[in-house]
Amino acid sequence: MTTQLKDVWANGGTALGAWLSSREPLFAESAALTGFDYVCIDLQHGLQSYEHAVTMLYAMARTPTTPIVRVPWNEPGIIGRVLDAGAYGVVIPMVNTAAEAAAAVASCRYGPLGSRSMGPAGVSARVGREGYFSTANEKVACIPMIETKQAVSNIDAILSVPGIDAIYVGPADLSITYGLDPNVDQDDADWNAALETVVDACTRHGVVPGIHANAGLAAKRQATGFRMITVGFDLQPAMTALRNDFKTAREATGA
Amino acid sequence: MTTQLKDVWANGGTALGAWLSSREPLFAESAALTGFDYVCIDLQHGLQSYEHAVTMLYAMARTPTTPIVRVPWNEPGIIGRVLDAGAYGVVIPMVNTAAEAAAAVASCRYGPLGSRSMGPAGVSARVGREGYFSTANEKVACIPMIETKQAVSNIDAILSVPGIDAIYVGPADLSITYGLDPNVDQDDADWNAALETVVDACTRHGVVPGIHANAGLAAKRQATGFRMITVGFDLQPAMTALRNDFKTAREATGA
Amino acid sequence: MTTQLKDVWANGGTALGAWLSSREPLFAESAALTGFDYVCIDLQHGLQSYEHAVTMLYAMARTPTTPIVRVPWNEPGIIGRVLDAGAYGVVIPMVNTAAEAAAAVASCRYGPLGSRSMGPAGVSARVGREGYFSTANEKVACIPMIETKQAVSNIDAILSVPGIDAIYVGPADLSITYGLDPNVDQDDADWNAALETVVDACTRHGVVPGIHANAGLAAKRQATGFRMITVGFDLQPAMTALRNDFKTAREATGA
Amino acid sequence: MTTQLKDVWANGGTALGAWLSSREPLFAESAALTGFDYVCIDLQHGLQSYEHAVTMLYAMARTPTTPIVRVPWNEPGIIGRVLDAGAYGVVIPMVNTAAEAAAAVASCRYGPLGSRSMGPAGVSARVGREGYFSTANEKVACIPMIETKQAVSNIDAILSVPGIDAIYVGPADLSITYGLDPNVDQDDADWNAALETVVDACTRHGVVPGIHANAGLAAKRQATGFRMITVGFDLQPAMTALRNDFKTAREATGA
Amino acid sequence: MTTQLKDVWANGGTALGAWLSSREPLFAESAALTGFDYVCIDLQHGLQSYEHAVTMLYAMARTPTTPIVRVPWNEPGIIGRVLDAGAYGVVIPMVNTAAEAAAAVASCRYGPLGSRSMGPAGVSARVGREGYFSTANEKVACIPMIETKQAVSNIDAILSVPGIDAIYVGPADLSITYGLDPNVDQDDADWNAALETVVDACTRHGVVPGIHANAGLAAKRQATGFRMITVGFDLQPAMTALRNDFKTAREATGA
Amino acid sequence: MTTQLKDVWANGGTALGAWLSSREPLFAESAALTGFDYVCIDLQHGLQSYEHAVTMLYAMARTPTTPIVRVPWNEPGIIGRVLDAGAYGVVIPMVNTAAEAAAAVASCRYGPLGSRSMGPAGVSARVGREGYFSTANEKVACIPMIETKQAVSNIDAILSVPGIDAIYVGPADLSITYGLDPNVDQDDADWNAALETVVDACTRHGVVPGIHANAGLAAKRQATGFRMITVGFDLQPAMTALRNDFKTAREATGA
Repeated sequence: MTTQLKDVWANGGTALGAWLSSREPLFAESAALTGFDYVCIDLQHGLQSYEHAVTMLYAMARTPTTPIVRVPWNEPGIIGRVLDAGAYGVVIPMVNTAAEAAAAVASCRYGPLGSRSMGPAGVSARVGREGYFSTANEKVACIPMIETKQAVSNIDAILSVPGIDAIYVGPADLSITYGLDPNVDQDDADWNAALETVVDACTRHGVVPGIHANAGLAAKRQATGFRMITVGFDLQPAMTALRNDFKTAREATGA
Repeated sequence: MTTQLKDVWANGGTALGAWLSSREPLFAESAALTGFDYVCIDLQHGLQSYEHAVTMLYAMARTPTTPIVRVPWNEPGIIGRVLDAGAYGVVIPMVNTAAEAAAAVASCRYGPLGSRSMGPAGVSARVGREGYFSTANEKVACIPMIETKQAVSNIDAILSVPGIDAIYVGPADLSITYGLDPNVDQDDADWNAALETVVDACTRHGVVPGIHANAGLAAKRQATGFRMITVGFDLQPAMTALRNDFKTAREATGA
Repeated sequence: MTTQLKDVWANGGTALGAWLSSREPLFAESAALTGFDYVCIDLQHGLQSYEHAVTMLYAMARTPTTPIVRVPWNEPGIIGRVLDAGAYGVVIPMVNTAAEAAAAVASCRYGPLGSRSMGPAGVSARVGREGYFSTANEKVACIPMIETKQAVSNIDAILSVPGIDAIYVGPADLSITYGLDPNVDQDDADWNAALETVVDACTRHGVVPGIHANAGLAAKRQATGFRMITVGFDLQPAMTALRNDFKTAREATGA
Repeated sequence: MTTQLKDVWANGGTALGAWLSSREPLFAESAALTGFDYVCIDLQHGLQSYEHAVTMLYAMARTPTTPIVRVPWNEPGIIGRVLDAGAYGVVIPMVNTAAEAAAAVASCRYGPLGSRSMGPAGVSARVGREGYFSTANEKVACIPMIETKQAVSNIDAILSVPGIDAIYVGPADLSITYGLDPNVDQDDADWNAALETVVDACTRHGVVPGIHANAGLAAKRQATGFRMITVGFDLQPAMTALRNDFKTAREATGA
Repeated sequence: MTTQLKDVWANGGTALGAWLSSREPLFAESAALTGFDYVCIDLQHGLQSYEHAVTMLYAMARTPTTPIVRVPWNEPGIIGRVLDAGAYGVVIPMVNTAAEAAAAVASCRYGPLGSRSMGPAGVSARVGREGYFSTANEKVACIPMIETKQAVSNIDAILSVPGIDAIYVGPADLSITYGLDPNVDQDDADWNAALETVVDACTRHGVVPGIHANAGLAAKRQATGFRMITVGFDLQPAMTALRNDFKTAREATGA
Repeated sequence: MTTQLKDVWANGGTALGAWLSSREPLFAESAALTGFDYVCIDLQHGLQSYEHAVTMLYAMARTPTTPIVRVPWNEPGIIGRVLDAGAYGVVIPMVNTAAEAAAAVASCRYGPLGSRSMGPAGVSARVGREGYFSTANEKVACIPMIETKQAVSNIDAILSVPGIDAIYVGPADLSITYGLDPNVDQDDADWNAALETVVDACTRHGVVPGIHANAGLAAKRQATGFRMITVGFDLQPAMTALRNDFKTAREATGA
């Protein structure tokens, strides 16, 4: 257990994370130095390309924070590439079946646990090729997303696949499949029951339940049992501050 | 008078602006759509390269906001390049003498007012080559920075140079030359007197006084007579939010 | 109906478009300002990367033109990413079966119509997150390519898949599957019959028939019934002009 | 037969190659000018993005060396894109079955041999569109990787797929599936027998056997029958030299 | 004499060139393969950054065409950098005095002829470090721009500076200093007399007179004595074609 | 004294450094982790742009190595920008007079020691804005290059300028001004006497003498008194290895 993220989980703690959607690597460094247990580069809905992700991984290197990446899709090429560049966790969207979960795991693990291809050109300059290979299967967190009604109904089959460290609930997409607007939280009973179903299944299978949230929701999610909770962001706060500061200054000056 | 920034000034109003230091063009678009009178891309102390600035100018095109650029130094090559790409104002650091002010103006104006070279490849695709040339000298704002004790003592000579639309006080650098820590505001009497000296000289010479500030300082600066006040930012708010949200979540969860 | 492209179709008109293959975003802005109903960024055969496409979408923002993207392949990751960045249509290569068409639609539509994942980071800064979500399924054009003999023979099954706005015939690839050289037009009877088959099926299914063409072919294709016709380009005209201007000057000067 | 790589093979010779993992296009030019029969840009485990690969293809253009690319995965989108940019060979990871081999070939070949889509925007500026199309199926080398126990056991089925020019053994990944550490060479009898099995099958099927190696292993691999042997690299030598020169200088100076 | 450009001049011929303003390196390759004697990358008014220029130099390598660069300004840093990357000529804007001409030459030449710093990292990989150094002073073309009334009046002093291969008239900027609209040609007698003055002085001093033109003007400029005439472009033809093809198609279809 | 480089000097030791000319940030990380006292990013003769330098500074962050940058020229804009991004030393080319040395120092130091402008956006996220400002003048190494006969003859005047930490001899450029081929070492008596003159002057003025060298020359340079010696490189070793490995493999295989 040698990443901060897995250490927190091993100790039964709750990991708090930041989620990066912009192309400014300084936010990655800043978030990593802030003390988050993990910082996730979002290659699915964020604005970054793979090239930005590589730079952001440099910006987080040699901090305690565990750098992870959400890939655009459950596809072995990009999963291998972000791991080779130094991500120590992969969040994999739209895993709805046990077969998709097995594919996700296979992409994250060297044989015999999976079929990841060997060649960690980027990260091995950082930690050594031999050392990397011998510990990667243990250190890398494989984190499928549970974000559809189908996934919730398949949750036991999905979690029965060996090699899953955590799952990550996508509340907006989950909302859509429950006929709700895509929000980070809902009053809807079925939607909340789905969260409990997922947490319960995780407990049974020894998998960490994670969820996309925000700072205000952290305690509520922790109370439900989630132990990987994303609470920090780069894009929205900057845009909100631009709007608020404009409003404040306009009111103060009459300009 | 055909930019929002110059319109505000022509109408005797106070222009409020945003200052961009990150490499995320979305913030440029977001700031422009927020309604700021000007948005400045900072190529001196920001993290962007020229290439980012060009993309950020696309992101602001066809909004009412006037896009301006702070160049790294008082050098005709880069001043021409940002104008050719579509900036409608240039903030030029460390203008301490009338000769430096004259050089700044020359770089911003086509002959006979200056010696800017003709070839607006980027912006003329947007507005037409002929139309651009015939109005550029009027539309482009030339904005030297006043940020040293020397510049303050030379302020009348500097403002006597024809072709200056506004000046922009750099409070941090000004602080250093007054022996103070580099902050956006000071209690120091001499430093505040310098601000008044600059505003008074601007009034005499028909030049708009501008200053780097923040939303909380806007009214105070306006009261001193400043009519170009930067109040919005991208980099610091995002970093502050990451820290605050981490702290909030940590306290709420005990994580 | 709130994009120019869909408006034209709703009014029974013929949409004319430009096709961009170079890495120069200025051509995107220029084409959009020219008045094309749509401008397509070609990530399949063009030279751009995703990063270029994002910049080109900025360059077209706030013009009436509808920006669309041809993705490299029928893959949900890249389809989601170009839509999140602000494309309002996706051209999807090599859709040969109803199953492939259903996959294409699913990638373009939020539930319950499809399985697109929610997170429009780029475009929602432009139009607002809520407004984007509530109208995206209607505004986004899903445009599978019909470019093989197999697709022509499956055309009714393909068009029976709900959610297809238009199809786009790739004449060069279609030529190859008919044993012809890959050209934009052919004298071959079978090939021309295939075009008619596609148009007829579109008419029956209420789907707009589109095709890759050029300005000289526009009237001919319109006469066949096509209502989405690509006629403008960036790469070839510049290369042709370089050759022609060299020849002209060489002949004029004897150089 | 019009690439150096295929000429060497046609003449029964052994092709020597370089393997590029860094983002420095100068190494591509340097390797090409050194005289390697092929130079491979590694988009699977290397640090380059597609954009770098396009620049590296420029850097090798008009040298005798044949530029090839290893793609991240057996996926038609990226295979088409690197060929359109001017690669004359594609190394395709993890081809374990005849079906996967058939998919690899289909992505590399225009119809009727495959289903590659027509539109070589980059390379056709170099060699002409018509000339490119009419010879591409012959010139482009399709090179699936054999790098698992499963692939070795399926080798006859894989090589029975028409259109494979060569196979490329990945010794590190092959090692993992044999329960060995991921090295470029092994003493293990089964692993070495696998190499012989692959070479024998290649001989029977008229396919060139290739392998990832190094300069010191070249003769040994040639003796086993391999005729495509990678012996040059960019990343490791530079890192090794940095370490060695530091050590030498430290010992010489006592610094 | 070992570049095509200098060979043409040595043989008393007229060199025809292309001028690149876009960020698409394919146009550089295309122009170089077309047969132009020189192709100029415009870092002053073009949209490219230094990074694009380096890629464009790769795209032209190993063609007969001589690659040259117009730098943003008469500044030794950027002049050295484009030469180190492989430009064999530098067009230097706004050289108005003998002192500015001497500075331009000094930046282009190794000692004792100038003060260029040694370190051709990029180009020496192409041609060898020793060979490069020993021939660079002869091969590199130093080409100051004559584009103001002041420069015309100083023309004899400017051309008396040793080491100038050619001058390049900027007709648009020259127009401005004569009180005319910035066009590539003028009817104005004084402006045309200035051209003759420059050509005559060049003849006296053994310097090649060059000028920015277009294909239609080539013969006229040659008749005046110019022997370096730019006639090909990338940006304008593509934009013009987009407009023309849209108009053609709109008229043909009534769309 | 809080950088490794300045610590070594303060302790009277000899600092060993690496010099980076390629665009591969991995080499920066690798060199930094190797243990060099300083690693220099060469923006004068290297192939990197400013953007690469920023990424390379991330790659070296949080290692003991002191990151420094050679700027293209003695120009305050770029000196400020590399320092703001996190360089802790600047090597400044072609400082030949006391006035040029004073300008170099002014660009590197905040007032009252110089006129560097305040705004360390990049590095202050790493170390804090206040802490950065209060220690930067002490931590940043200002290192003018001595590389001409003129500079050697002015050495006492140059070193009399307060604020110079070290000088850096450029042996190749120095060679040229002595009429020699541009090499890293020379047998020439005058050239070697120049080195001694520089070292002696440094001793008198309390400035560290530095020089561009290689691992084989380190002891010889140290014996002459140099205490900053560059011995590691990225570009040449990789190119040499490609050539050597090709030759080895060719000889071994007869290919």
